[in-house]
Amino acid sequence: MTRRLLLGAFLFHPGGSHVSGWRHASAEPHRHVDIEYYTRFAQTAERGVFDTIFLADGLYFWDRFPSGVDHYGQTRLEPLTLLSALAVRTSRIGLAATVSTTYNEPYHVARAIASLDHISRGRAAWNLVTSRYDEEARNFGGDDHLDHSLRYERGAEFVDVVHKLWDSWADDAILADRESGLFADAAGLAVADHRGRHFTVRGPLNVSRPPQGYPVLFQAGGSDAGQELAAATADAVFARSLPVGEAQRFYAALKARVVAHGRQPDEVAILPQLRPVVAETEADARALAAELLASTPDAIIVEDVAHSIGQTLPADPDAPITPAPDTDIANESKSPNRRLARLLSGERLTARDLYAESFWESVSVGSPAAIADDMQERFESGAADGFVVQALTQPLGFESFVDLVVPELQRRGLTRTSYEETTLRERLGLARPARRVPEPVTA
Amino acid sequence: MTRRLLLGAFLFHPGGSHVSGWRHASAEPHRHVDIEYYTRFAQTAERGVFDTIFLADGLYFWDRFPSGVDHYGQTRLEPLTLLSALAVRTSRIGLAATVSTTYNEPYHVARAIASLDHISRGRAAWNLVTSRYDEEARNFGGDDHLDHSLRYERGAEFVDVVHKLWDSWADDAILADRESGLFADAAGLAVADHRGRHFTVRGPLNVSRPPQGYPVLFQAGGSDAGQELAAATADAVFARSLPVGEAQRFYAALKARVVAHGRQPDEVAILPQLRPVVAETEADARALAAELLASTPDAIIVEDVAHSIGQTLPADPDAPITPAPDTDIANESKSPNRRLARLLSGERLTARDLYAESFWESVSVGSPAAIADDMQERFESGAADGFVVQALTQPLGFESFVDLVVPELQRRGLTRTSYEETTLRERLGLARPARRVPEPVTA
Repeated sequence: MTRRLLLGAFLFHPGGSHVSGWRHASAEPHRHVDIEYYTRFAQTAERGVFDTIFLADGLYFWDRFPSGVDHYGQTRLEPLTLLSALAVRTSRIGLAATVSTTYNEPYHVARAIASLDHISRGRAAWNLVTSRYDEEARNFGGDDHLDHSLRYERGAEFVDVVHKLWDSWADDAILADRESGLFADAAGLAVADHRGRHFTVRGPLNVSRPPQGYPVLFQAGGSDAGQELAAATADAVFARSLPVGEAQRFYAALKARVVAHGRQPDEVAILPQLRPVVAETEADARALAAELLASTPDAIIVEDVAHSIGQTLPADPDAPITPAPDTDIANESKSPNRRLARLLSGERLTARDLYAESFWESVSVGSPAAIADDMQERFESGAADGFVVQALTQPLGFESFVDLVVPELQRRGLTRTSYEETTLRERLGLARPARRVPEPVTA
Repeated sequence: MTRRLLLGAFLFHPGGSHVSGWRHASAEPHRHVDIEYYTRFAQTAERGVFDTIFLADGLYFWDRFPSGVDHYGQTRLEPLTLLSALAVRTSRIGLAATVSTTYNEPYHVARAIASLDHISRGRAAWNLVTSRYDEEARNFGGDDHLDHSLRYERGAEFVDVVHKLWDSWADDAILADRESGLFADAAGLAVADHRGRHFTVRGPLNVSRPPQGYPVLFQAGGSDAGQELAAATADAVFARSLPVGEAQRFYAALKARVVAHGRQPDEVAILPQLRPVVAETEADARALAAELLASTPDAIIVEDVAHSIGQTLPADPDAPITPAPDTDIANESKSPNRRLARLLSGERLTARDLYAESFWESVSVGSPAAIADDMQERFESGAADGFVVQALTQPLGFESFVDLVVPELQRRGLTRTSYEETTLRERLGLARPARRVPEPVTA
């Protein structure tokens, strides 16, 4: 089978992945809770023969800084309800919901995702996150978030319980035999009876086994613990965007981890984020990107940079930054700290300078051919198995990608021109997991 | 405004409310996780101008007795995902999801139901339950269910938190103003900052205020604590079916409780369950009901009766029952105990006798006119504001009701012939709740 470049269409803030993408003249910021707005997004992705849409999520409203309330377009629909509606508005595309393992219960998550998998006839995916913000903890009884390693330990056990619940029923256990009166074959039913450190869950699930066996599992997996969990359990990893050399090293290291867990390297697809700004010409694309950057309110610039370097800043984004005396740059590999190091070395930089630098580093700006070149290079040089596309402004940025870049990728034979397989798992080239009859676990 | 009889269409086991309704020749037991099956149900209800569909739920699979696995058609879809899909397959009908306050978190529930309300443009309802089975506790870390009064205390606080979260945003707080860059008006944002006995939730919600303000709240409210919670907070009560005299007393007592909570009697609609078996003639209806009863497997009969009278029974449903020596009939108002009393008095009864008696007591069998007569009598004599219709077998039983009884109700002017209002709340004649800016609570 020819290796095929995978495509996911990402949405978090409905106006686009740039915080003020909603301000663009083409945007529709009054429609952030309008199902027709999301339907158009999903149908556009399906028109582009994307493998999946990918709804990011957070269990909080970001009001730590005033700019979060004033300027971000954060109000939106909850992913599982939204994807269930989109399941019947689409027919072939995957539907990935972000769900936290820290503030949920496995029985609910197993049920809801199994249900979405049935409703969509095998197109559900779960993007597992462990929720890192204090803002999330405070909506669920706590004041601080769980310790990082404990979150991942809980996450690993959570996946284990969910798998056991999805395995409650054999694929052929539902007989529905009018004649005998046997609805289910008791021999095909297993009780999870899970007793672990974080969860005690008996089961069985009251939903029959999902069409995909286990719906597809996405993870972000940036940290060491995150990569371990992903290598052990994920079907696909959503990675951050890196310069091509760093991306190749990340890719190789993660595939090695996958192998270390006794799996084949191609059992886990690695999908970095891609933030394209595309137009017919390079000049038009740069103009659009510059316009989006220029639409960023000053308060966001100042508060975003203040947050990233960990110190308060004056309200004027054009004032030179004086690093705080207690500045810690222990981890120089992180880009905010690279900037801190430059500040500490005496370089004269304003918040606007730093914000703009981050912006241009994070985006892929160019003509359709140039963007396709970059994607192809990364795909063919061991930096990516595909991409999760985050348009900066919606719907324009994503529709431009589908109209301009996708045909170029298709001409090059990198992506498909139509859907062939039925389930998302099949489309990703992954086997349907055999049912494992759960055995009692004591941890 | 003319008082109008309200109609809800109930679904729990997808094959119908009789446990072996799925065995009927017209049933479709292989389609219990098929979205098209539920779409037909919802669209049939909409064709009948029902006010709402009503999805019951439980967080467990009932395997306490072998018959639960063998003979019940229990596997089904999760309500919130299912209703979200149905929201875009329908346009006017209400969508009521059963959600437990014992095994959920208010932030999740507030988000999901607000999201469903946006997706459906104001048609969401929440049927609040507190989950009474040990089977449910065991799927969420516990071995036994919470004490009854504690469950209702938690339920009351849960509703309070959810209301505060729905009030996070003023109705006009989302400006989405491209020019100024102001997405939201900070003056229209309130942090819940709830600190109570059961929940600590800061908020705000990341979903704008639901179209209905507060989506409609249903409760079952059979017990004293349940009725208190319903009288204080519910918009509609789902009640069990009772003989007309008892139903009138229940209705009057609950309306009095509503008044005692400072509300108007018509702020809470009382909707008893109705289990109709209807056909063109009385004889055909009785034949269908008898056929459904006769389709009940013996194991269900024995185990159901054993469960209801609290003692194990021999496997033969036709063996006379000998009451256990330690039988307790303290609460004689409960019908199983009325039967126990008869057993204790020496009456010769088999499990089949008792099961059949319960069955015939629970159903309304007759011609369209006879069923409409009973509904009209109850509606006009202070026993009901409407009904939650539970067909015994799906789809036949419900479609017969819509095709035969609904036109009769419409001819009598009891129910509408078309939808007029936009939201479910409007259709129920209820005001849209004004936003209350939450204040910090310490309990």
